[in-house]
Amino acid sequence: MTPRIDGLQYANWSEKIFRQMRAGGLDAVHVTITYHETFRETVLNIEAWNRHFERCPDLIFQGHTAADVTLARDTNRTAIFFGAQNPSCIEDDIGLVQVLHTLGLRFMQLTYNNQSLLATGCYESHDTGLTRMGREVVAEMNRVGMVVDMSHSAERSTLDAIAHSTRPITISHANPAHWHPARRNKSDTVLRELAASGGILGFSLYPHHLKDGSACTLQQFCEMVARTADLIGTAALAIGSDLCQDQPDSVVEWMRTGRWTKSIDFGEGSAAAPGFPPMPGWFQSSHDFTNIEAGLTATGMHDPEVKAIMGGNWLRFFDASFGPAAGPTR
Amino acid sequence: MTPRIDGLQYANWSEKIFRQMRAGGLDAVHVTITYHETFRETVLNIEAWNRHFERCPDLIFQGHTAADVTLARDTNRTAIFFGAQNPSCIEDDIGLVQVLHTLGLRFMQLTYNNQSLLATGCYESHDTGLTRMGREVVAEMNRVGMVVDMSHSAERSTLDAIAHSTRPITISHANPAHWHPARRNKSDTVLRELAASGGILGFSLYPHHLKDGSACTLQQFCEMVARTADLIGTAALAIGSDLCQDQPDSVVEWMRTGRWTKSIDFGEGSAAAPGFPPMPGWFQSSHDFTNIEAGLTATGMHDPEVKAIMGGNWLRFFDASFGPAAGPTR
Repeated sequence: MTPRIDGLQYANWSEKIFRQMRAGGLDAVHVTITYHETFRETVLNIEAWNRHFERCPDLIFQGHTAADVTLARDTNRTAIFFGAQNPSCIEDDIGLVQVLHTLGLRFMQLTYNNQSLLATGCYESHDTGLTRMGREVVAEMNRVGMVVDMSHSAERSTLDAIAHSTRPITISHANPAHWHPARRNKSDTVLRELAASGGILGFSLYPHHLKDGSACTLQQFCEMVARTADLIGTAALAIGSDLCQDQPDSVVEWMRTGRWTKSIDFGEGSAAAPGFPPMPGWFQSSHDFTNIEAGLTATGMHDPEVKAIMGGNWLRFFDASFGPAAGPTR
Repeated sequence: MTPRIDGLQYANWSEKIFRQMRAGGLDAVHVTITYHETFRETVLNIEAWNRHFERCPDLIFQGHTAADVTLARDTNRTAIFFGAQNPSCIEDDIGLVQVLHTLGLRFMQLTYNNQSLLATGCYESHDTGLTRMGREVVAEMNRVGMVVDMSHSAERSTLDAIAHSTRPITISHANPAHWHPARRNKSDTVLRELAASGGILGFSLYPHHLKDGSACTLQQFCEMVARTADLIGTAALAIGSDLCQDQPDSVVEWMRTGRWTKSIDFGEGSAAAPGFPPMPGWFQSSHDFTNIEAGLTATGMHDPEVKAIMGGNWLRFFDASFGPAAGPTR
């Protein structure tokens, strides 16, 4: 049976939310564990996850390989895969890529919204492409089996990463810019290169990435998915909901400003609406993955395509991505 | 075939030394990776080990389970198991026990020579026994599968650890005090309790732990082993050589003084002989494990006993010790 997988969430984790994952049929979720945190702070976040795993072993466990998705389905739980939305967690130290992979980190964005040591974020006015360290870190991520995620990166940096990486990359949570021209959504050029290289686009449900924002309908969203399939094929498509359920607005402030400014940066928000935007009525929690599957079917997509987008494509990608590049070294 | 295992080394690691491990028939070595280092500094040491593993994959690999000892033997390599000689690496944070276990730490001393947050070292004048945090950390080590090592700890703390730990502990590198009354060697009471609880004593080849120091003969050492077998049985006995090959004397200064004093502490040395003492002629490198096996046989011990001491007992102990306490949690 094809699994159901969410390619990005950053919720205020609780037993309630873990139960909703299972109620929504989610066999695996890629969760963000760190933004601007240092390595030591990221390890504190991993410790907090270890306590979730210890307290809720009947609902969740840490995923390391694609086989854990099947194990989750077989045991009626959800496998949790770790990711970072900024490379702060490796500081200036390439050796931390392998250390964090050993601790379970399976995705790392080369940037959040700003320039990082590795590449350029989508809010900068100049785009360096991959830096010297960026090229080295991508090669190391390729070696150990950590996925390059360019969801928040600028255009040239993203194209550089696709070209330089020897393994397919992901844009785990974004939508096509031609549908909704947000700064975080992606050009057709990027989407075509991503698909041609074997990468995966996770469609985002975050209102700032949606046409008509919180008022976007399920039909609008699913029609956009179907049109993207026409453009770049179904094999590159998946869901990365960007669900930030139950988070206080202080969290979106941390995402946007970290420690890089003493001022306020509203990112995708505004002074009038600085907090998290309300999610669409048809996607309030993981439970509503069921709505998305029904909506995709209603567009006329065939069942195998719908199943691939709902999780089959992520599973294939996980299987190809999370192990060492040259086969087991032991 | 019974494996050959060294239960403690802290050499100046090099390809030469890894080749000598294999030449000495060592299928596994417990290596010290940290003394007074913080967590972040310990991770830097792990990164250095990752580079050794990447550069010398034909000689060594990181061991995680007892099965890796067999894998090493089958592939003509040596499995390297990590250990800490002081709990500085967990700082004041019990959550780091599981994190370090995930990174491969399989042994941790509750103290080096001084009082730690957990227990008392053998050079203190007052022995607290296990502290409040010490009892919590021992329980957490028991849960995840990290071995309590009391080689450098004071008597009451050691007896406390044996009593409080729900799993057998080790004294990975020391000798009986009745043979050579060094502060680091252990009383008959400790040795009897250790053996009765299923623990393991690794006999040390470090000259300060030997009768007549560097002049101790192979026969003296092996007769001591045989007499200890008479006292507490063969099943509790193994080798933990404490080989510090090719280390500059600055390293023994770090071991003894870390950052806890601005003065010099000579530990087991003296102002007249502050550095590493010369090893006995019959034990200069891992290659000389062959001498020890021959020496034990010459005492009249039977071959199964000799094989058990040379590695079989460690293998049984590794198998019982390195996994989670209540079986796999996944």
